[in-house]
Amino acid sequence: MNPNQRLYIIGAGPGGLEHLSPAAHAALQSCTDLAGHGLYLNLLGPLTEGKIRHKTPMGEELARGTLALDLAASGRITALISSGDAGIYGMATVVFELLARKPKPEWAEVTIEVIPGISAMQAAAARVGAPLAHDFCVISLSDLLTPWELIAKRIDLAGQGDFAVAFYNAVSNKRSWQLLEAQKTLLRYRQPETPVIVAFNVTRKGEQITVTTLGELDPEPLNMLSLVLVGNSETRRVGPWVYTPRGYHTKPELAD
Amino acid sequence: MNPNQRLYIIGAGPGGLEHLSPAAHAALQSCTDLAGHGLYLNLLGPLTEGKIRHKTPMGEELARGTLALDLAASGRITALISSGDAGIYGMATVVFELLARKPKPEWAEVTIEVIPGISAMQAAAARVGAPLAHDFCVISLSDLLTPWELIAKRIDLAGQGDFAVAFYNAVSNKRSWQLLEAQKTLLRYRQPETPVIVAFNVTRKGEQITVTTLGELDPEPLNMLSLVLVGNSETRRVGPWVYTPRGYHTKPELAD
Repeated sequence: MNPNQRLYIIGAGPGGLEHLSPAAHAALQSCTDLAGHGLYLNLLGPLTEGKIRHKTPMGEELARGTLALDLAASGRITALISSGDAGIYGMATVVFELLARKPKPEWAEVTIEVIPGISAMQAAAARVGAPLAHDFCVISLSDLLTPWELIAKRIDLAGQGDFAVAFYNAVSNKRSWQLLEAQKTLLRYRQPETPVIVAFNVTRKGEQITVTTLGELDPEPLNMLSLVLVGNSETRRVGPWVYTPRGYHTKPELAD
Repeated sequence: MNPNQRLYIIGAGPGGLEHLSPAAHAALQSCTDLAGHGLYLNLLGPLTEGKIRHKTPMGEELARGTLALDLAASGRITALISSGDAGIYGMATVVFELLARKPKPEWAEVTIEVIPGISAMQAAAARVGAPLAHDFCVISLSDLLTPWELIAKRIDLAGQGDFAVAFYNAVSNKRSWQLLEAQKTLLRYRQPETPVIVAFNVTRKGEQITVTTLGELDPEPLNMLSLVLVGNSETRRVGPWVYTPRGYHTKPELAD
């Protein structure tokens, strides 16, 4: 085994380096090559100095994963960078899909380690309080690889189950109708006053976080870096904060 | 404003200090008092030196939150510690519940900051690959504060929607029937071969992670520190890894 045939799949956190774990930091220090979308490599700032940066565009996930595996197989310690958690809509699964479906023999020599990170929903939730403190669903509104019918069904089920919801890929340059549909669906189950958080660039320069309501949510001004959190029927506000209680008021400890 | 009337609500991550964020580290360094369950304070090891440790037992969350708010209001910089993410079944929402429902006037002076952390499901997922890489639900099986009927409904909806699922509080000293029920329910929608991950003490001393299947999952040997992840219909294994693909094979990029 060549110890340099090593691939770290790193969740770099929401952006601010104060949320980058020491494990991710150490892996970054040990590597010679970085693969990732340019935006996410730039967020790492000084941590990328002296390393070869392989920037690949958004949408080219299979090519990026292949590049990272090839680099590692060639004996270069490589870090494949996702923002947030590499295991939540991140690059980790892309590597395993490649290993399962289009393996190259030399990839078998690569030692892989996945390093988790703080996902955008967690950073956004912390900024406003604790909106994801009870059961919740995480749903991507991108229908590139998942049929819209299934996504729509999941939104409806989330409504039926009174789950709080974190929507990733809520809108893109090309589409905002999915979020409008999601809003309509959830309004069948929840009050228009249900708190909604729209977060953009959380922990990064230009951070914007808005607390609105399900009734007043306007998908139009959002972009593909926006994250949307929707509370459940118990989610409420206290001062500047939004929180979802640990349970339901039918239960004794929470009764008034 | 007294700058020492400060409360940090800290997600300390899964346990291993290599996953404790710099933001959490800095907050810990700045504080004089720590409040938390003894187990979680002990995991912080050297970071608690020289600080007053207020250990409160499991189940006494309201008392712990009250203590932390009182300490901060009295002018002691206080860190309230959760394991994992303080916003996911953690202490953050307890503080906001107290502020909303039983506020003391002096608490209004306290500056609060919530610091997110890596939750156990993320650390467990990273260890085995990427089982939570597509839409998923997070469900607590504790019926202390939530009616079991609603929990059972949520499990069924997760099955209907083909969501991967992370079960928190999967079993306790007193109960394992809930996880058995969850298993039965999901088996109505998923193959017995569906990958399941049982994780215990992830990133801590004594870490145990087992990959099994939905059909073979045995709740009996689990304990209250166990976390259970269940894959969706597409979740599969490659070598030692478990991953959930980014989408469905009906979509072109994923077609074989």
